[in-house]
Amino acid sequence: MIITMKLGATEADIRYVLKRAQSLGLKPHLSEQGGQKVIGLLGDLHGLDSDSLRALRGVDKVQRSTRPFRLASRDFRSEGSVIQVRGCPVGGNLLAVMAGPCSVETRDQLLTTALAVRDAGGRMLRGGAFKPRSSPYSWQGLAEEGLRILADAREATGLAIVTEVMSPEQVPLVSRYADVLQIGARNMQNYALLNAVGETRMPVLLKRSMMSTVEELLLCAEYILSNGNPNVILCERGIRTFETYTRNTLDINAVPLLKELTHLPVVVDPSHATGKSSLVRAVSRAAIAAGADGLLIEVHPDPENAWSDGFQSITPREFGQLMEEIRVIGTAVGRTV
Amino acid sequence: MIITMKLGATEADIRYVLKRAQSLGLKPHLSEQGGQKVIGLLGDLHGLDSDSLRALRGVDKVQRSTRPFRLASRDFRSEGSVIQVRGCPVGGNLLAVMAGPCSVETRDQLLTTALAVRDAGGRMLRGGAFKPRSSPYSWQGLAEEGLRILADAREATGLAIVTEVMSPEQVPLVSRYADVLQIGARNMQNYALLNAVGETRMPVLLKRSMMSTVEELLLCAEYILSNGNPNVILCERGIRTFETYTRNTLDINAVPLLKELTHLPVVVDPSHATGKSSLVRAVSRAAIAAGADGLLIEVHPDPENAWSDGFQSITPREFGQLMEEIRVIGTAVGRTV
Amino acid sequence: MIITMKLGATEADIRYVLKRAQSLGLKPHLSEQGGQKVIGLLGDLHGLDSDSLRALRGVDKVQRSTRPFRLASRDFRSEGSVIQVRGCPVGGNLLAVMAGPCSVETRDQLLTTALAVRDAGGRMLRGGAFKPRSSPYSWQGLAEEGLRILADAREATGLAIVTEVMSPEQVPLVSRYADVLQIGARNMQNYALLNAVGETRMPVLLKRSMMSTVEELLLCAEYILSNGNPNVILCERGIRTFETYTRNTLDINAVPLLKELTHLPVVVDPSHATGKSSLVRAVSRAAIAAGADGLLIEVHPDPENAWSDGFQSITPREFGQLMEEIRVIGTAVGRTV
Amino acid sequence: MIITMKLGATEADIRYVLKRAQSLGLKPHLSEQGGQKVIGLLGDLHGLDSDSLRALRGVDKVQRSTRPFRLASRDFRSEGSVIQVRGCPVGGNLLAVMAGPCSVETRDQLLTTALAVRDAGGRMLRGGAFKPRSSPYSWQGLAEEGLRILADAREATGLAIVTEVMSPEQVPLVSRYADVLQIGARNMQNYALLNAVGETRMPVLLKRSMMSTVEELLLCAEYILSNGNPNVILCERGIRTFETYTRNTLDINAVPLLKELTHLPVVVDPSHATGKSSLVRAVSRAAIAAGADGLLIEVHPDPENAWSDGFQSITPREFGQLMEEIRVIGTAVGRTV
Repeated sequence: MIITMKLGATEADIRYVLKRAQSLGLKPHLSEQGGQKVIGLLGDLHGLDSDSLRALRGVDKVQRSTRPFRLASRDFRSEGSVIQVRGCPVGGNLLAVMAGPCSVETRDQLLTTALAVRDAGGRMLRGGAFKPRSSPYSWQGLAEEGLRILADAREATGLAIVTEVMSPEQVPLVSRYADVLQIGARNMQNYALLNAVGETRMPVLLKRSMMSTVEELLLCAEYILSNGNPNVILCERGIRTFETYTRNTLDINAVPLLKELTHLPVVVDPSHATGKSSLVRAVSRAAIAAGADGLLIEVHPDPENAWSDGFQSITPREFGQLMEEIRVIGTAVGRTV
Repeated sequence: MIITMKLGATEADIRYVLKRAQSLGLKPHLSEQGGQKVIGLLGDLHGLDSDSLRALRGVDKVQRSTRPFRLASRDFRSEGSVIQVRGCPVGGNLLAVMAGPCSVETRDQLLTTALAVRDAGGRMLRGGAFKPRSSPYSWQGLAEEGLRILADAREATGLAIVTEVMSPEQVPLVSRYADVLQIGARNMQNYALLNAVGETRMPVLLKRSMMSTVEELLLCAEYILSNGNPNVILCERGIRTFETYTRNTLDINAVPLLKELTHLPVVVDPSHATGKSSLVRAVSRAAIAAGADGLLIEVHPDPENAWSDGFQSITPREFGQLMEEIRVIGTAVGRTV
Repeated sequence: MIITMKLGATEADIRYVLKRAQSLGLKPHLSEQGGQKVIGLLGDLHGLDSDSLRALRGVDKVQRSTRPFRLASRDFRSEGSVIQVRGCPVGGNLLAVMAGPCSVETRDQLLTTALAVRDAGGRMLRGGAFKPRSSPYSWQGLAEEGLRILADAREATGLAIVTEVMSPEQVPLVSRYADVLQIGARNMQNYALLNAVGETRMPVLLKRSMMSTVEELLLCAEYILSNGNPNVILCERGIRTFETYTRNTLDINAVPLLKELTHLPVVVDPSHATGKSSLVRAVSRAAIAAGADGLLIEVHPDPENAWSDGFQSITPREFGQLMEEIRVIGTAVGRTV
Repeated sequence: MIITMKLGATEADIRYVLKRAQSLGLKPHLSEQGGQKVIGLLGDLHGLDSDSLRALRGVDKVQRSTRPFRLASRDFRSEGSVIQVRGCPVGGNLLAVMAGPCSVETRDQLLTTALAVRDAGGRMLRGGAFKPRSSPYSWQGLAEEGLRILADAREATGLAIVTEVMSPEQVPLVSRYADVLQIGARNMQNYALLNAVGETRMPVLLKRSMMSTVEELLLCAEYILSNGNPNVILCERGIRTFETYTRNTLDINAVPLLKELTHLPVVVDPSHATGKSSLVRAVSRAAIAAGADGLLIEVHPDPENAWSDGFQSITPREFGQLMEEIRVIGTAVGRTV
């Protein structure tokens, strides 16, 4: 950590910072750069809150040179983690494709989709029973009835179930039905919820908030890991930018970057990342080419009549084409579907 | 609502959209612009999910011309709402200044701050007992012990208490001690929590998420209002941009804009909006000059030793100066402290 | 175009807007939605400045339903344009790879790089002679001497030359040496420069500004096209977001989106889009998989000693590996190198 | 400057970085933090391009602790600069209000506006003769005829003239008529233009680009200053964010921040920063309350018929009210109009 003092910092200010650093068990090293005093700090900096040093009188800025996450770090575990989801490994050579409707609407709708997903080579079925909606006047999902339908579709197809959990008290209920607990983008920093899923040993699909940095995503993964649950799958689903033609901007850089920074598997959600069904196939190919471990895709048998997100859902036929393309791109980068 | 069809849309596509619109009880009006078919929709559009129309074949885009929030709208209630907090009106002529430490640390720290806040003219005491922190390794607050200390400080000073509630199950506990339930920026779209505070009749301070639009903020207020709780105070606390010298970018435009769009009171948090104690006074003056109904300010008797956010906290002495300046600016815009 | 009137708009306001629309040769159609008056406008809207209508009294907002660019539009020309650069077609089946150093430094440096680029299968040599730099204290390029070295490298290798032109008065000089005139991201909206290159018939590589939308990029292409120069190649090079681990955020969505909106070829610059040499290969694969027509890549024989951008430059050896990977991915999407 | 090495950096990598630093005349200091090697660099770092060090093998990141601008810095000149514009000081106790139409349209329009601006207490007249427009099909200004009309209005009212210059070759022409050369936001990083105005001694109004940081703005000011022209006035005019209700987001934090970082005067343009005439007055008050040295405001005698930007222009009557309010707020912060 490096502390740069203001030009006008007094001797007393500097002495106080040095003393404070020592009281934290750190070894400070004072130097000067272009007239400004700079203090380097050595020692065990994990657990140290750099904010407390930023508040000292005469301090201009504090720069951390090491990373604030630990268990999620590639330094902590150099080999990629492989998360087992009902016998389907996520993070290894196999590409994990999770697909299904935005929301569970009816038994028929879900089963039709599930069969199409399975037949095209998907491994997991996604579908929302509890739906976070921007407007209180939008439909909020089938709740437990939706979970039951999901479990029936698993029974019928063998697909593992990925579904969202929205609050700590829903965790036991959703865990009874789901194979993967999804934390939605809006809840990425809902720490009570992260702690609750961290106390289970269920696989967790943690979606990056549209307003969060890669580092913040990894700190949220750290919440789950530090509660003892190692089964975290990260999901890049587009960030918010000034561009308005698309719903979000897929941060494709984040895929190889996360692969450098963490051992956790990374999947991409091209449906939310684009918000336009016509872009989903191209962006799915890009994600796999960039090294993603899988995809999370909205598929609906009749997007025009979907109860939510129809505009970004693709049909089972388009999903079949997408899987064909993914197979070819996957082979090109040494992966199988 | 206006639907623009793609250039290549077929007659059948157009007929289908018209039919769908009619089935929703709307009166569609078809026209042509520069070769593209455009469909205007008349009728009661509230409650209508424009997303479902975006998914129809041949549709290029759907533009809503009316606003999606209703109870929060200035059209719904043209006069400004005044929220009563322990006898202190928020939203009227009086400027409501809420100040105090980021976190409740000790009884002494809080009481010292509370007395300074009261003596300088503050009306409410802020202080966190439950702290949302980016890192699981950071200190997470005193919990119920912190709430007790807050209640004692109210007893001693008469100041109303503003404190954060982080999950639905904490609502009853925090309501026992607090006068205002604060929803933090990271939880703005935690709908389970919004519903829970909506079921109380407690004043709620709803902080805008750092990457949410003004419209999304108002839709979250709508969650609370539509549950029957009319006591919502909005808080602009800075949004996330590409600028890195400051922690966030205060969206000062949002102050007069919210005053146009909604009848709810608007306060500004210059501490989080800047992340630098040296900027807090200037930005507080700007907020009041722009028409804000109050301020939420981090004050600490010893920022250098604060357990959190010291770098953006001002001292009681600086807070006194700030109040003097606010008094003068307030007078200039017809408000009193 | 749709004009939504404010709730409080008077009859006179509405009559005035209708009259104004008619005076512009448009056919207005008045209707009502949820209490608000809405005016649809039919007729030839190209060339019409919607801003002038936004200023009328009582107007709440003006929404354009058609696109403001014309010559660049896929509607204007449904088949993809193929731009010929010294016999190398850009925009067809062949992938156009442009590679070379950020700056021309020495004859040796450039020739070494050019030979490596050619041997690995690159078609064009990039290299800056005039360098736009954030700081006036940074090195600004070799100027005309750099152009001469580029021309010599073309002589030696047969590669076409892509190099930046920074002001209108440089256009004749740079045109004497270059095969493609590059407009840098910071100059995307330098209209004097766009007009100047529009008056030539040289191929132009137009880089998207890091702060511009896809629509603004296409309007800048329109400046060049409307001056009579049809030879425009678009380049996505990353946009500015809140993420700080990477220099920019590659907007991969923009690749298929531009393919929908325009007939112009689209190449991607993964070097600037990531700012980290370790991410360049993965992101290059993604760009080709998403449908890009080519790449613009910084290659340097000795990145550690590059005079600029070394941190995002790859070595000739890494470039060779990248070309191998691009060949395989290209085949997977039906393209050849 | 601090260089953090990657965990896997070899002894040879580290030795090479140390050697390189020494060859640049710097004194490196090697230490270790949590297993990572960290190198602090002491010496004269101005002029040093940190990029070159980022490219060395084994380097993880390079952090600069000092600022890259020098002549613009408050450290270079601790007292605020006062720029003289035809006898009107900008940057001192007096608030400098520059107002007028977006574009010069006709002699009548400009003279009417100029008289209103003068009578209300404005000091300078703004008006565009050369207009940068997003679309090539929009009207581009009256050119030299507009400059002549501006000069006539100065003659008639005594107001100083602020007008935009768009390319280096226009500098002599515009300088013959204008008192202040305005660099528009889109041209902030047009370095050829910055150099050209830097070679004059004319006052320059440098507008911050809508997606540039405060540091980049100051580096562009540095371009002008380092060419020998000390007469630079900075202008904050809103940045681009995800919020769409307003045209831009005024970065009010930047006002006191710039006052800390630089000695140059800072004015605010609330017209572009909001893009809505109804918000201009509130935001103007905020700017002055935050410490701005002046305002740049679009005023038009008939906004409904303005040829450009009517939606964000206020009328002479509203401008009169604004000046009244600014006078009161100015007094509250110790400034006069």
